[in-house]
Amino acid sequence: MKLRSLAMAMAMSAGASGLLLVSSIDNTAQAQETFEWKMVTSWPKNFPGVGQGPERLATLVEEMSDGRLTIEVFGAGQLVPGFEVFDAVAGGTAELGHSASYYWKGKAPAAQFFAAVPFGMNAQEMNAWLHYGDGLTLWNELYDDFGVDVMAAGASGVQMGGWYNKEITSVDDLDGLKMRMPGLGGEVMDRMGVAIVNMPGGEIFTSLQSGAIDATEWIGPYNDLAFGLHQAAEYYYYPGWHEPTVMFEAIVNEEAMASLPADLQAILRTAVRDVNADVLDEYTARNNDALETLVDEHEVELRRLPADVLAQAKEHSADVVAELAESSEMAQKIYDSYQAFQEKVVNYHAISEQAYYNARNPQGDTTGD
Amino acid sequence: MKLRSLAMAMAMSAGASGLLLVSSIDNTAQAQETFEWKMVTSWPKNFPGVGQGPERLATLVEEMSDGRLTIEVFGAGQLVPGFEVFDAVAGGTAELGHSASYYWKGKAPAAQFFAAVPFGMNAQEMNAWLHYGDGLTLWNELYDDFGVDVMAAGASGVQMGGWYNKEITSVDDLDGLKMRMPGLGGEVMDRMGVAIVNMPGGEIFTSLQSGAIDATEWIGPYNDLAFGLHQAAEYYYYPGWHEPTVMFEAIVNEEAMASLPADLQAILRTAVRDVNADVLDEYTARNNDALETLVDEHEVELRRLPADVLAQAKEHSADVVAELAESSEMAQKIYDSYQAFQEKVVNYHAISEQAYYNARNPQGDTTGD
Repeated sequence: MKLRSLAMAMAMSAGASGLLLVSSIDNTAQAQETFEWKMVTSWPKNFPGVGQGPERLATLVEEMSDGRLTIEVFGAGQLVPGFEVFDAVAGGTAELGHSASYYWKGKAPAAQFFAAVPFGMNAQEMNAWLHYGDGLTLWNELYDDFGVDVMAAGASGVQMGGWYNKEITSVDDLDGLKMRMPGLGGEVMDRMGVAIVNMPGGEIFTSLQSGAIDATEWIGPYNDLAFGLHQAAEYYYYPGWHEPTVMFEAIVNEEAMASLPADLQAILRTAVRDVNADVLDEYTARNNDALETLVDEHEVELRRLPADVLAQAKEHSADVVAELAESSEMAQKIYDSYQAFQEKVVNYHAISEQAYYNARNPQGDTTGD
Repeated sequence: MKLRSLAMAMAMSAGASGLLLVSSIDNTAQAQETFEWKMVTSWPKNFPGVGQGPERLATLVEEMSDGRLTIEVFGAGQLVPGFEVFDAVAGGTAELGHSASYYWKGKAPAAQFFAAVPFGMNAQEMNAWLHYGDGLTLWNELYDDFGVDVMAAGASGVQMGGWYNKEITSVDDLDGLKMRMPGLGGEVMDRMGVAIVNMPGGEIFTSLQSGAIDATEWIGPYNDLAFGLHQAAEYYYYPGWHEPTVMFEAIVNEEAMASLPADLQAILRTAVRDVNADVLDEYTARNNDALETLVDEHEVELRRLPADVLAQAKEHSADVVAELAESSEMAQKIYDSYQAFQEKVVNYHAISEQAYYNARNPQGDTTGD
C-alpha cells in the first residue's frame, strides 16, 4: 500500500467509525474490537539495544490502545528464522516484523540503501531524509510489491570498524585476511584483498577465537562487549565507515494494517517513531559506558583505521554504491534521491555538527596516533 | 509529580479501568470521556520548525485517541505571552505548554542545563542523557516544585554562531559590539567584551538593520532565512558553540496529567517523543536547503569563527557553567550528572560520530579558510 492509499484508508476508516458512533449502539463493540498480533524479529529475544526496540513497541502499543492491540514478540528462530522475517510478514504468518533491510537484498537489491551505505548518511541524516526527504516514500514504494509497509524503527549510530587479531598499519595488512563483514561494506573489503566470510552473529565469537576468521565487524562497544569479542581479538578499529548507522525497520503486513481502525494505525505508527529514537538513545548512552569498560578494564587496543585504508575504502565504496544503483530503475531512483540529500547535508553538517565536534574536541581521539 | 509517582498513578489508573471493564456497563461512558486541552507556546503560531512540533502533537494525539483528547494550540501572545508559558501551565490556565527551559532561569537557574549548554552536548547526546541517563528524571525533579511534568519535545541541532555586520578576524573585533545573544552564551560573550542586548525574536531584524545592534544569533539557516536576516547583515558565522542544540520542552500541568486515564497519558507521552524526533528531522532537512539558498542565491559570507574566539569562548563557557552549578544544590546535582555523561560521550563520539564526519569529509568546510 502506498502512503497515499494508507492515508485514504485511514480517513475512510475514521469516517466509518465516526458514523458508527452516531448511528448504532454497536459502536461500543466495534471500538472494543481487539487485535492480537505477532511480531517476528531478526534478533535474539531481548537482545541488548536493537532487541529492546520490539519489546518497547509492544509495551507502548498495549498501553496506548488500552489492550485493544497486543503484540507478542518472537526472537529469531522462535517462530521463523531471523532471515525469514520479511517473508513471514509478507505472507501473513506474522503481522509485524523488526529487522534491517539489507537482509532482503536477494529480493530487492535497492533495499540496502535504507539500512547502511558505506560513507553514506549517519542516523540524524538518515532520519531527516526518511521523514523530510523522499526516503520513507521510496522505501514504501520498494516494498509495495511485497504487500509490506515499512517504517524506520531504530538506529545504531556510527558503528565500529571491527575487531582484528593483528595490527593493521596499512592497506597491505588487509591482504588475504578472512573477515566477517556483511553487505556493501563486505563488497568494498573484498576489493581491498579481504576474503569475506558470511556467518550469523551467533558463530562470530567461536570463529574468531578458533582462527577460522581473522577479523569481524559487529555493531559497537555495547553489543560487542556483551558478545565478549575482546576475548577473541586484541585490536578494535574505528570508525565504522561501512555502517555510519544501521537503520532498523518495522515492517507491517499491508492487509493487517488496513484491518486496524484509524486510531490503532496511528498508535502503531507513533509507537514505531518513538522506538526509532529510543534505540539510538540507548546505543548512544550504553556505548559510552561499554567503551570505557573495554579500554580501561579489558585493555583493548583501540586504533584508528590507517589513512590509506579509509581513503581506499572511500573510493571503492563510491564504485560499489554506484553499481548497486545501476541494478534497476528503482535502485537508480533511490540512489539519486539519497545522493542529492547527502550532498546537501554533508555541506550543512560540515558547518554545524562536524564543525562543532571539532571545536569542542579539537584533538579528536588520540588513541590511534 | 515524580516519574515514580506518575508510573504508580498510571498503574492505579490502569487497574481501576480494568475493574470497570468487568464490573459495570458504565465503563463505556468512562472510556469515552473526552478532554479538551489548551497548549500555550513560546512561538508564533505555525512558526517553521519549532512551531510545527505543537501542531504535530495535537494531530497525533487526536488521531491516536480517536478524538478523546483534543489539544488547541496557541501561539505566543494568543492566550498568554510567550514568556509566561510556564506560569500558565503551572497555574492551570493551560494544561500543556511548548517552550525552552532557559526561559525559566529566573525561577530555577538550573533549568538552563536542559535547554542549551555552551560547548555542551548536541541533540543525539542530550537525548541519550535524558532518556538513558539521569537527565529527564532530574529535569522532572527540578519542575516538581511547580507542579509541572516535563518531556523533551524537539531539538534544533547545532545552531549557527550568528550574523555580524562586520567581519570578525580575531577576538579583538568583538570588543564593544552590541549583540543579541540570550542565556549562558550571552554571559560568555559578555566576558569577551560584547555588550549583550536582550530582545524578543520579533525585534531582531529591525534592530540589526537599523544598527541598534551589530550582531545577533538566532537559530539556523532554515529559521534565519525565513526571518530575512541575510538582508540585515552580511557575515554568517559558525559553529554555534553556545547552542550545540536547543532542546525544546513539553510541559504538562501535573493535576491535568493525573486526570487522564492511563491510555491517554501513554498516548500523550508517546506523541511527545515522536515530536521530539520529528522537529530535529525537519531542521536537519530544511537547514540543508536553506543554507544552499543563503550562500548561492543571497551570497551570504559564510565564515568559521576565528580560532581564538572559539578557544576563549570555550574557556569562559567552562567558568560560566561551573558558576551556574554553584548556584544551588540542585544545580550542582544536575551539573555533575551532565558533566559525567558528557565526558564519556565526548570520548565515544570522538571515535564514532566525529571520526566518521572527518573520515567522510576530511577537509571539513573550507569556506572560512
